[in-house]
Amino acid sequence: MRLDSSDPGFADAFEALVSARREPATDVASGVAAILADVRARGDAALHELTLRFDRIDLDQAGWSVPREARQAALQGLEPDLRAALELAAERIRAYHAGQKPEDRDETDAAGVRMGARWTAVESAGLYVPGGLASYPSSVLMNAIPAKVAGVDRLTMVTPTPDGRLNPLVLAAAEIAGVDEVWRAGGAQAIAALAYGTGRIRSVDVVVGPGNAWVAEAKRQLYGTVGIDMVAGPSEILVVADGRNDPDWIAADLLSQAEHDATAQSILFTDDAAFADAVSAAVERQLAGLSTENTARPSWANFGAIVLFDDLARTPPYIDRLAPEHLELAVDDPEAIFGHVRHAGSVFMGRHTPEAVGDYVGGPNHVLPTGRRARFSSGLSVTDFMKRTSFLACSPESLGKIGPAAVSLAQAEGLPAHARSVAIRLGL
Amino acid sequence: MRLDSSDPGFADAFEALVSARREPATDVASGVAAILADVRARGDAALHELTLRFDRIDLDQAGWSVPREARQAALQGLEPDLRAALELAAERIRAYHAGQKPEDRDETDAAGVRMGARWTAVESAGLYVPGGLASYPSSVLMNAIPAKVAGVDRLTMVTPTPDGRLNPLVLAAAEIAGVDEVWRAGGAQAIAALAYGTGRIRSVDVVVGPGNAWVAEAKRQLYGTVGIDMVAGPSEILVVADGRNDPDWIAADLLSQAEHDATAQSILFTDDAAFADAVSAAVERQLAGLSTENTARPSWANFGAIVLFDDLARTPPYIDRLAPEHLELAVDDPEAIFGHVRHAGSVFMGRHTPEAVGDYVGGPNHVLPTGRRARFSSGLSVTDFMKRTSFLACSPESLGKIGPAAVSLAQAEGLPAHARSVAIRLGL
Repeated sequence: MRLDSSDPGFADAFEALVSARREPATDVASGVAAILADVRARGDAALHELTLRFDRIDLDQAGWSVPREARQAALQGLEPDLRAALELAAERIRAYHAGQKPEDRDETDAAGVRMGARWTAVESAGLYVPGGLASYPSSVLMNAIPAKVAGVDRLTMVTPTPDGRLNPLVLAAAEIAGVDEVWRAGGAQAIAALAYGTGRIRSVDVVVGPGNAWVAEAKRQLYGTVGIDMVAGPSEILVVADGRNDPDWIAADLLSQAEHDATAQSILFTDDAAFADAVSAAVERQLAGLSTENTARPSWANFGAIVLFDDLARTPPYIDRLAPEHLELAVDDPEAIFGHVRHAGSVFMGRHTPEAVGDYVGGPNHVLPTGRRARFSSGLSVTDFMKRTSFLACSPESLGKIGPAAVSLAQAEGLPAHARSVAIRLGL
Repeated sequence: MRLDSSDPGFADAFEALVSARREPATDVASGVAAILADVRARGDAALHELTLRFDRIDLDQAGWSVPREARQAALQGLEPDLRAALELAAERIRAYHAGQKPEDRDETDAAGVRMGARWTAVESAGLYVPGGLASYPSSVLMNAIPAKVAGVDRLTMVTPTPDGRLNPLVLAAAEIAGVDEVWRAGGAQAIAALAYGTGRIRSVDVVVGPGNAWVAEAKRQLYGTVGIDMVAGPSEILVVADGRNDPDWIAADLLSQAEHDATAQSILFTDDAAFADAVSAAVERQLAGLSTENTARPSWANFGAIVLFDDLARTPPYIDRLAPEHLELAVDDPEAIFGHVRHAGSVFMGRHTPEAVGDYVGGPNHVLPTGRRARFSSGLSVTDFMKRTSFLACSPESLGKIGPAAVSLAQAEGLPAHARSVAIRLGL
């Protein structure tokens, strides 16, 4: 799709692009609810049955969990290059996330009231790792390392092993990231096992990780029973590029998003019509040789877009309207645009920062808000595995200063025991 | 209920206390879904109809919104004492929450990669304020002030006005807190109006505030369409008190929770059986004269508990198991206990810090996780109205250092366009 910001119908066409649905509405809510209730009621027995049905494995024969030795063996079996790459990624992700640990507060104000907040890690967290094509070791690192940096005591991974298949890269990444337990479980039943426990699998406090529509709906239904990371949709990138980029570079960036999923979205904002044509041509050229062409081509054809602006300085309001998961600013002065952007999950600055480098080894998290949710939510962080306890301490003197106001307000709200609990200490 | 930690059946009895359900299971999900769909499809017309049905007012006659002048008049009509109390509360809440504003990060590491994060406020937020008995001005302050401290541009309040009734204290609090718009709408339809917009009411990014089962279910169903604060249940307090407290003080503290709601829970941990008896007697005595007796008595009778320990130093694991919303430590050295507590919403330290002072004028937020959710979630804060955008910037040199690892990982994950977008910049 090609839009031109100088066309008379542009505003409407752009709004249509913003609100286009990319996911088919799949109503799995009642199916998921039944699975959750079953696992809650019958624990291990339900998980055994559901795994036999969906993944065609008998957990009593295959083993419910993947032993530590198997994870270590997977790590030791890696090619040295790949192992070094995973370890570099882990180290960089760990360093960035260590900087996210929040500081405690402890202050005493002019009235003599002491107050503050202390942060602590949750005791346990569960990480869902999809099976099959979307089983990515990089996602294991991105989800597990923040939990361990936070100080989570027990990090439990669940992953489906259809017909017994298990990705050794995922096991190796789990070992590098410090995952404590790995269980063969997938789908809504795995999320239920994490939230409720099953007997063998102990329940956790927070559940994170990507998954299909069943997994996403299970997380949504269990939100409040456990903490969850976010509601995730198809991935997306917005590249802002002037004409002084190599069209092949930008085409590769657009396709790196498109190859994730046929519902992924890649959008280019540019101020150069000839460059737009060159990128279009390069996308077609690169698609032809791509092993992921069957995914990337429908994504680009159905959801890809190139939008022409007369001046890239005019793009920030349109960037904010899309609130993209990934924003790449392939210009000489990316700060000039970033400085005016309010809503984006993660920004990749300059001509030498392809989004894909951030998927693996940049440091910041690649679990990011999609579907315009960057308007109100953030990428995964250490604080998703922590919580804050506030505190307050009054002395007789400081209670004497602020207590009478509490008494007045409690009385006005019709809460006499509230009023009394303060007044009685003041001798009122 | 009285438990003694030295009894043989104590462990089981305590677990029963921890897992007792306090809320009847109300299945309002399908009713709520129908209302959300109706408001989404028909906007103003649906809201008008639903408000006529549930609140018995015609918005076209009563006025859809409460004009600024009415809010200012409510503030000017307050008794001076009450106005001063509200203003003191607002000032203290504002000061505490100002300290929650997160800092941006911008670092360059040894490889020459620049990375960091920037925080920005959401553009708009919606605040639900219940009608009737639970219409509290203190809740308006606690929900609205963090939004304004965060930098939210447009803060929209919705509140039901059954038969036209509106609490002037709530309007005054809205004015003090800087609420921008006030609309007459309640129930699931008000939450839908905030999330989808209705024509007259513009949609918002984040929805906060307490409400009944319909409001809570609407927020849960719209989680992901908008950000929400949390899933809230009945309120609770755990008081840890030795025998050297005035039993009347502690009885008042327990009742200040019980009077909120018949499903609220008040628990006392003590190491002194005679003190426990004295508190029990004081609760009965105070209940007799209380205007909220009809609420507080069933709460105390059905959900209240006193647990005897031989040593209060043994309480922290039991405190963590309950993960109480409010924890009051009425002992000489509260730090000795707090230092070993991991899960609590907010802690009130010492003999002169009744929980109620924190409900109004302490400074920290009174919107806190209930129902053991302090294991994984935190009280309302400024960051609930903000989000973080991470960023990454590579130079040709730094991409040369970390890029090859990204290429290896992308190839191993079967994502060739990811690999190409990095490799092409490295001339690989």
